[in-house]
Amino acid sequence: MSIKKPKVAVIMGSDSDLPVVRKAVEILKAFEVEFEINVMSAHRTPERATEYARNAQDNGFEVIIAAAGKAAHLPGVLAAFTTLPVIGIPIKSSTLDGLDSLLSIVQMPSGIPVATVAVDGAENAGLLAVQMLAIKYEFLGEKLKQHKEKMKQDVIRKDQKIKEEVF
Amino acid sequence: MSIKKPKVAVIMGSDSDLPVVRKAVEILKAFEVEFEINVMSAHRTPERATEYARNAQDNGFEVIIAAAGKAAHLPGVLAAFTTLPVIGIPIKSSTLDGLDSLLSIVQMPSGIPVATVAVDGAENAGLLAVQMLAIKYEFLGEKLKQHKEKMKQDVIRKDQKIKEEVF
Amino acid sequence: MSIKKPKVAVIMGSDSDLPVVRKAVEILKAFEVEFEINVMSAHRTPERATEYARNAQDNGFEVIIAAAGKAAHLPGVLAAFTTLPVIGIPIKSSTLDGLDSLLSIVQMPSGIPVATVAVDGAENAGLLAVQMLAIKYEFLGEKLKQHKEKMKQDVIRKDQKIKEEVF
Amino acid sequence: MSIKKPKVAVIMGSDSDLPVVRKAVEILKAFEVEFEINVMSAHRTPERATEYARNAQDNGFEVIIAAAGKAAHLPGVLAAFTTLPVIGIPIKSSTLDGLDSLLSIVQMPSGIPVATVAVDGAENAGLLAVQMLAIKYEFLGEKLKQHKEKMKQDVIRKDQKIKEEVF
Amino acid sequence: MSIKKPKVAVIMGSDSDLPVVRKAVEILKAFEVEFEINVMSAHRTPERATEYARNAQDNGFEVIIAAAGKAAHLPGVLAAFTTLPVIGIPIKSSTLDGLDSLLSIVQMPSGIPVATVAVDGAENAGLLAVQMLAIKYEFLGEKLKQHKEKMKQDVIRKDQKIKEEVF
Amino acid sequence: MSIKKPKVAVIMGSDSDLPVVRKAVEILKAFEVEFEINVMSAHRTPERATEYARNAQDNGFEVIIAAAGKAAHLPGVLAAFTTLPVIGIPIKSSTLDGLDSLLSIVQMPSGIPVATVAVDGAENAGLLAVQMLAIKYEFLGEKLKQHKEKMKQDVIRKDQKIKEEVF
Amino acid sequence: MSIKKPKVAVIMGSDSDLPVVRKAVEILKAFEVEFEINVMSAHRTPERATEYARNAQDNGFEVIIAAAGKAAHLPGVLAAFTTLPVIGIPIKSSTLDGLDSLLSIVQMPSGIPVATVAVDGAENAGLLAVQMLAIKYEFLGEKLKQHKEKMKQDVIRKDQKIKEEVF
Amino acid sequence: MSIKKPKVAVIMGSDSDLPVVRKAVEILKAFEVEFEINVMSAHRTPERATEYARNAQDNGFEVIIAAAGKAAHLPGVLAAFTTLPVIGIPIKSSTLDGLDSLLSIVQMPSGIPVATVAVDGAENAGLLAVQMLAIKYEFLGEKLKQHKEKMKQDVIRKDQKIKEEVF
Repeated sequence: MSIKKPKVAVIMGSDSDLPVVRKAVEILKAFEVEFEINVMSAHRTPERATEYARNAQDNGFEVIIAAAGKAAHLPGVLAAFTTLPVIGIPIKSSTLDGLDSLLSIVQMPSGIPVATVAVDGAENAGLLAVQMLAIKYEFLGEKLKQHKEKMKQDVIRKDQKIKEEVF
Repeated sequence: MSIKKPKVAVIMGSDSDLPVVRKAVEILKAFEVEFEINVMSAHRTPERATEYARNAQDNGFEVIIAAAGKAAHLPGVLAAFTTLPVIGIPIKSSTLDGLDSLLSIVQMPSGIPVATVAVDGAENAGLLAVQMLAIKYEFLGEKLKQHKEKMKQDVIRKDQKIKEEVF
Repeated sequence: MSIKKPKVAVIMGSDSDLPVVRKAVEILKAFEVEFEINVMSAHRTPERATEYARNAQDNGFEVIIAAAGKAAHLPGVLAAFTTLPVIGIPIKSSTLDGLDSLLSIVQMPSGIPVATVAVDGAENAGLLAVQMLAIKYEFLGEKLKQHKEKMKQDVIRKDQKIKEEVF
Repeated sequence: MSIKKPKVAVIMGSDSDLPVVRKAVEILKAFEVEFEINVMSAHRTPERATEYARNAQDNGFEVIIAAAGKAAHLPGVLAAFTTLPVIGIPIKSSTLDGLDSLLSIVQMPSGIPVATVAVDGAENAGLLAVQMLAIKYEFLGEKLKQHKEKMKQDVIRKDQKIKEEVF
Repeated sequence: MSIKKPKVAVIMGSDSDLPVVRKAVEILKAFEVEFEINVMSAHRTPERATEYARNAQDNGFEVIIAAAGKAAHLPGVLAAFTTLPVIGIPIKSSTLDGLDSLLSIVQMPSGIPVATVAVDGAENAGLLAVQMLAIKYEFLGEKLKQHKEKMKQDVIRKDQKIKEEVF
Repeated sequence: MSIKKPKVAVIMGSDSDLPVVRKAVEILKAFEVEFEINVMSAHRTPERATEYARNAQDNGFEVIIAAAGKAAHLPGVLAAFTTLPVIGIPIKSSTLDGLDSLLSIVQMPSGIPVATVAVDGAENAGLLAVQMLAIKYEFLGEKLKQHKEKMKQDVIRKDQKIKEEVF
Repeated sequence: MSIKKPKVAVIMGSDSDLPVVRKAVEILKAFEVEFEINVMSAHRTPERATEYARNAQDNGFEVIIAAAGKAAHLPGVLAAFTTLPVIGIPIKSSTLDGLDSLLSIVQMPSGIPVATVAVDGAENAGLLAVQMLAIKYEFLGEKLKQHKEKMKQDVIRKDQKIKEEVF
Repeated sequence: MSIKKPKVAVIMGSDSDLPVVRKAVEILKAFEVEFEINVMSAHRTPERATEYARNAQDNGFEVIIAAAGKAAHLPGVLAAFTTLPVIGIPIKSSTLDGLDSLLSIVQMPSGIPVATVAVDGAENAGLLAVQMLAIKYEFLGEKLKQHKEKMKQDVIRKDQKIKEEVF
């Protein structure tokens, strides 16, 4: 098992979610985590979605990231068909400011959790997937620490820039 | 086809929804519409739920009523697997005052409608099912008019009672 | 009765709702369902609206679709004067992000249901009307299945496109 | 005209609204304003409601107070059939904490105003009716000033009581 | 008293509210109701605002229209210093979509009503003022009926236009 | 100036707010800060309230705490008449779960700040007043550190208790 | 590494959260996952909380579950000091119906994810922790499948019971 | 101590908050209050933030202003490490219209207050800091009165302008 590589399934409910979801993918790339990206709808291609979730573990996936908007059932539906951890990204759509997507994903009933991140929080979805995988894959833990350090240095640089230039 | 009887599938996500859903069933009984009642969860018994929806039309059902709370995916998931009209009842649960259930049901993406009634609005779900069936079954149209008349008389009686007794 | 054609009344509260409502009409056209489109206001032309609803069934309509924004009373007012199923489309207006329209339509009191779809969910209103009519008109059931299949193929095509082009 | 007495129509959508609406009536009594109380539903007795509104002015009414809950259409529907000022009281019902009632009443589209008070704000509805009538009936203006003075003295008394007893 | 002319005070909390408030003024002009327009802030010019309200009746005003945004205290503060009816217009500002303005105006505690209209509902504020004044001034009642008829004809014209041109 | 004692005005809009406000008073007592408690309404005793605020500084007050519910104008109205810091406590009332009180207090327009604490957050209002006074009165800074230490020890004790007893 | 046992840190912001959090602990027990339970406050014992998070990984923890209410900073603060996955449970407190807790936890800015479950969703927090650990510990994957099967059988049993007894 | 100058720490969670926060700084400049501006994140540079707060008083700061968006923990986290008064500015970000930022800041649990201003209310944050400092520094009290007078004159000028030019 030690030669197995971490692998994540990234699923979006609509191709219009891509500009948001792309940030999750960039994180996975940066952490050298293998991934497969899919457009699948809980409502328009329900068989494909449920089939995909049912076989995800056998196909070597260890985490699922699912993004959807409005009455966003996709993450919960996938979670119903797998015991892999499912991370849900609520996509802000044109009405109700993302509250519908958020509540449809985070308020899962007992028994079927979905690990929910912020509305349009795809970058965090990617990082959360890496954190989960780092439980098993030690090299990811190291990279996470470097990433945290890099974020810190970014903030420090911005702090200095504002102090120098702006005031 | 004329000897076919109207038949409705009533599905609730949890047996704790029964006190609310009961009002839908009482309407169906009052209108002499056949029905079958089920506890099925989009998340805990997903195969049963999707299988049920897929076969609902072949099993003679003409309308589906589905009640669920919190991230209430059940009506939408059923709707994904059938072309029968699905009526969704958002159940108010212990947090967020039913807004989560309502948005999870009503904000369905394009292509898969769910006919949503008020939070805990099971009586209206029953009536809406009867109205849909009355498109085909003329005897139900007649009964709906009587029911409307009866509601009117109830209000008129209450109006008189308040005028006489209270003031 | 078998030679009767399905017929839907489409009513919007203001001509400014047309860009949204148009999608419901396109669905009805695509399914070859006859329809009549009207601008009627529950508040500015209340007699016309109530009169229209009262006579809708006698005039051969079998389903009513009504769209309105803000304190959106139109679908509920029409439903008060008919026993036909009424489908309500909440229109997002310039304040409160559509929550006012949604709650004014979906939270109908017991006795007078309105089958509510998502904010600006006109396409689903059209599909829901077709699903209701398909209870009676078998040819619509067939078309609904084809439409569902077509949606599925669309998603599958987008899935392939994203896989090929983007990553 | 000077011998005409001020007269208010008080209408509630359901007899269950009486405990709230009673406070409006008590204000009217205290100000010696004539009133008629009715249970009428915009949805269950729509003809009675619209007829009542249409004839309200001819029947000597000068202001209408209307209370309703959930998708609370009653005040707006009455306002559609009269040019008398209509005061709307949103009634808090069992779900969504009164937000549905409030938005359904206050968010009226242009052309048909409803003077909305707070959720369950029946006392203010009564006072607002008196303030409107006081435009015409001078004796009411005098009483309003006394009422305002009395409220002031009540607060002052409570202020003293708290200062003496509690601390 | 019969030669007295109806007169309305229109007060906005900030000159930035003018584009919205203008619609109230246009209604007053159209109905030939005298008015005075003021910029006054409950918070920045509190003495002027309270003084204005205290003397409003003596200065011949019969209704006050007050518009304000965010924590919109202006209408309530004015109402505290007068027994004239006060109409509140919640102004949508840059955050929270108008909900803050609405709740700050409509949720007045018992004893001090504010007749609240929709967020940015200035036209209705003007009409409501006219309706209140029409209790006393008969010529306004006549004009209100004409205005209602005109609105009706507008809708009917739009209905015909859509039927002819669009479909 | 060094012999001046810190003094806080505590004002509640209604005597029914006392059970909540009491916690602010207990904090002031515990920190040996002088205070005066008042029931004053922005709407029912507006002259008293504005007069009180106008003279608060001359009367030796250095901070004002004001609690109110619903369309909670009291803190903002007081702030309009003084340059002392005003701390606002939104009181949860029977509808809308405190959101109305919160937004009416926190969303103050530019120029007139109100330091807002949580809904029913009276204890924090008291502490915030002490923190403000500690800018000037050094002995309060010392007490604040002790209070913080005490809170810490309380949590540590509860932590141990749960570890020992519960699991 | 293979002899290492899975270990979870369970942290609640207040001992009053225990009745909710207990369900997470019961899940961990049922899955034979080692855990340590703590009462720690992001605000009252910030050093302990940050220290705990900083050392969590070295102390053998692989997942952190953190529960907090109101402005619920605990999960996010812990996440700032570790690269372990942090699961956040929003606790419903006495105002605003849990929306404050939910948004304070789920809306984390980019870089520091918190895996959020439903308001009061402690059981799902426990299950999510197990799912994360199952990426590494195969025996947990097996148990998760049994748990899912058990949930399914529970629903099926309830379905039969309702069918037999109730109707 | 009398020669000590008032000094405020201004901290923003991200450099993107600068356009909003700038208004607080302009107020501090206008009142000749010394300040230091920092970019610090509760989540990305938690050690720096907590260290900064812990030493703020020793470094001569008397008030802290902290701005943050989304799950805005920064003001609360700083408040946990100091007994200085902390003023929180909720920054409106791209989703949920600022409600998340507001609730994450204002709903602080008992013991650790944050003086919260309106969403994006940086100008008021600056003024509130000055009001707090004026408890100790008399010259600021004088300036606050002048500022209040200037705001008043601004409104009066706008009032005249509107009266002259617009109508």
